[in-house]
Amino acid sequence: MRTIALPLPSGHKGILPLLRERRTIRQFADRPLAIETVSSLLWAAWGVNRPIGPFGASGRTAASASNSQEIDVYVALADGVHRFDARRHRLVPAVAGDLRALAIGRGQRASVAMGAPVQLIYVADLHRLTHTRGFQEPGLHDPEVQKAYYYVDTGLIAANVYLFAASQGLACWFHNCDKPALAERLHLGPEERVLFGQSVGYPVRG
Amino acid sequence: MRTIALPLPSGHKGILPLLRERRTIRQFADRPLAIETVSSLLWAAWGVNRPIGPFGASGRTAASASNSQEIDVYVALADGVHRFDARRHRLVPAVAGDLRALAIGRGQRASVAMGAPVQLIYVADLHRLTHTRGFQEPGLHDPEVQKAYYYVDTGLIAANVYLFAASQGLACWFHNCDKPALAERLHLGPEERVLFGQSVGYPVRG
Repeated sequence: MRTIALPLPSGHKGILPLLRERRTIRQFADRPLAIETVSSLLWAAWGVNRPIGPFGASGRTAASASNSQEIDVYVALADGVHRFDARRHRLVPAVAGDLRALAIGRGQRASVAMGAPVQLIYVADLHRLTHTRGFQEPGLHDPEVQKAYYYVDTGLIAANVYLFAASQGLACWFHNCDKPALAERLHLGPEERVLFGQSVGYPVRG
Repeated sequence: MRTIALPLPSGHKGILPLLRERRTIRQFADRPLAIETVSSLLWAAWGVNRPIGPFGASGRTAASASNSQEIDVYVALADGVHRFDARRHRLVPAVAGDLRALAIGRGQRASVAMGAPVQLIYVADLHRLTHTRGFQEPGLHDPEVQKAYYYVDTGLIAANVYLFAASQGLACWFHNCDKPALAERLHLGPEERVLFGQSVGYPVRG
């Protein structure tokens, strides 16, 4: 066993240039995103990329535990919050009003990210883990294992968002959110868990 | 509030074509990856992409809580396990011998993924969360919040791996691992947590 020096990757095609630009930017210009950009963002994040994926369910741009697809992405815009319906690639109304501030944790709200035009809100639906069409394993019914799965699965989606933002010159920041307030305002059920928020918009100097 | 039909994204440049190819493939050819490919894979996953990132620490291809960079990626190859040292972009020996089988959960080992040439093993170091150079918040000292952070941060890295695999025509599968056995064999300390494994290699029909 020896230490192995690795050659730094080169190349200007594919994913490497996007990964060079991947970063967190917390300052957003007060400028909305076009609906076409929101559409591409959501497809990149958690869209259906093939009709048949693992275990016979559709395939998505991000993996999930036993392909349970247990994460819902809500989209808070200035006029209200919609839920992203990936299967039909559309936004379904959830609640009217500007709830974007709730998508940022109380301790983090001093940031100018308050002005981001789009806040993604990640919500896990435990029912989909316990009723998966995929590989049946005891862990899917264990609250500790469920946590591991839905947090990892959130990260898998959030990374797609970061890379989409890098590809479009957009600013992006993954952060805490006001879980109790959002659970109430979004009328979530007892098996749904609010997890995190992610701000997307144009950078201040963009 | 109304339902908003979204236009499906088109385009053959940037990240969209990679996301169209993103998928889990669990069957691997018995063929090693070139060290240059392993190098690019690790840089894509969790490399240093700029000298100064958030809070004065280096920037990485994946975000982490308060830029704590608390995840270590170990690389199990046929001859042993190395730890990826992102700062110097090198592999540091951890333990000799073929431990790849331990990177797959006991219930999942019947799969032919046993033959994958590369197993990534994700390990969280809690010390880096509690001693971050970044934003100091009480949650970093709360075991439940720590879990949320290190699992999300693992997902952020694992998504980069999935997309790198898609870009290279490689097979990739994120899965459970044998946590107690790996913690012992990797000589991990009391603040380190083995989390998950991820298989990478050529697809059987590649």
